[in-house]
Amino acid sequence: MEQRLEQQLAFILELDKEKNIFRQTHLSGHGRNENDAEHAWHMAIMVYLLREYANEQIDVLKTILMCLIHDVVEIDAGDTYAYDEAGLASKQAREDAAKERLYSMLPADQKQDLIALFEEFEANQTPEAKFAHAMDNLQPLLLNHSNGGGDWKEHGVTAKQVYARQSKTAEGSRLLYEITDQMLQENIRRGSLPFTE
Amino acid sequence: MEQRLEQQLAFILELDKEKNIFRQTHLSGHGRNENDAEHAWHMAIMVYLLREYANEQIDVLKTILMCLIHDVVEIDAGDTYAYDEAGLASKQAREDAAKERLYSMLPADQKQDLIALFEEFEANQTPEAKFAHAMDNLQPLLLNHSNGGGDWKEHGVTAKQVYARQSKTAEGSRLLYEITDQMLQENIRRGSLPFTE
Repeated sequence: MEQRLEQQLAFILELDKEKNIFRQTHLSGHGRNENDAEHAWHMAIMVYLLREYANEQIDVLKTILMCLIHDVVEIDAGDTYAYDEAGLASKQAREDAAKERLYSMLPADQKQDLIALFEEFEANQTPEAKFAHAMDNLQPLLLNHSNGGGDWKEHGVTAKQVYARQSKTAEGSRLLYEITDQMLQENIRRGSLPFTE
Repeated sequence: MEQRLEQQLAFILELDKEKNIFRQTHLSGHGRNENDAEHAWHMAIMVYLLREYANEQIDVLKTILMCLIHDVVEIDAGDTYAYDEAGLASKQAREDAAKERLYSMLPADQKQDLIALFEEFEANQTPEAKFAHAMDNLQPLLLNHSNGGGDWKEHGVTAKQVYARQSKTAEGSRLLYEITDQMLQENIRRGSLPFTE
């Protein structure tokens, strides 16, 4: 087998480990914790179904690819819960090391492609990155909302914390942020998202 | 919320159930059974990484979308193991009913889009459908091969059965079929894939 294909297949097999990285979000129907691969799959289909709501025209393929690969670094770095302050402080260093190790398994041109996509996602400046982030926020919100906000209750997360993160959805889609706001207000009314600091 | 977005979000939440549809394939490292959402995510990234090996030029976005949605019908119809003869006989009727119920949750234009994509995948005539099928074959093969062919041993599957399915990979990619053939020969040599009928 030529070296290029061998490298590609080794990376593809390594990706399998993303299915063992579990998140704080629970599946609908009060199911088990979701893993990163499932989350990325869900986000990718959401890009296609909800693309009409992007604030700016997006390249759909590029946005889907960003969603598919945005958590690959967590194979080494682990999942950092969106409201874990201590974890967030060390996240960058852990993910930088992971990015280098994992993508170096690929041929140089594909390493460069995938790192560029990941860095564009992280920088969150382009229409595609902003819409991908909107999906990254909305996808777990839909699940958690369907479960009565149980993930927030479990971690004692407050409305202020959730708004700080979810309000960024407006940069990708003003309309999807309106819906987000409606869901958050409903959770505040029913007591699953407290306003205490 | 306007009705169109309400329908889209209801369908997106319904998709979550695909994470509970488990396949016969086990994750690498002799892990648990894989589910349909993880399998689809893995295939979609493989399309991007391996697209250079397609026999014919493919529309990458279309091929990725096919991979992402190709098992949605299994939310209702369940997974049918590739070597389950009785299950395969009733698969079409179960999947037709599932296709109608699930995609009818979407606005009419998106229902039509996704059914067209799924039917193109099923018909397996276009370059995109053939390459998506190559991924559908190669993805579980990589996992099973990494686990010493345990999935075949568990079900008493023979080399003849596996070749009947895997040989279709050549329609999407002759080169990836060569690699497939090498992996199958290795499993035959080490006794995990018997030639008995």
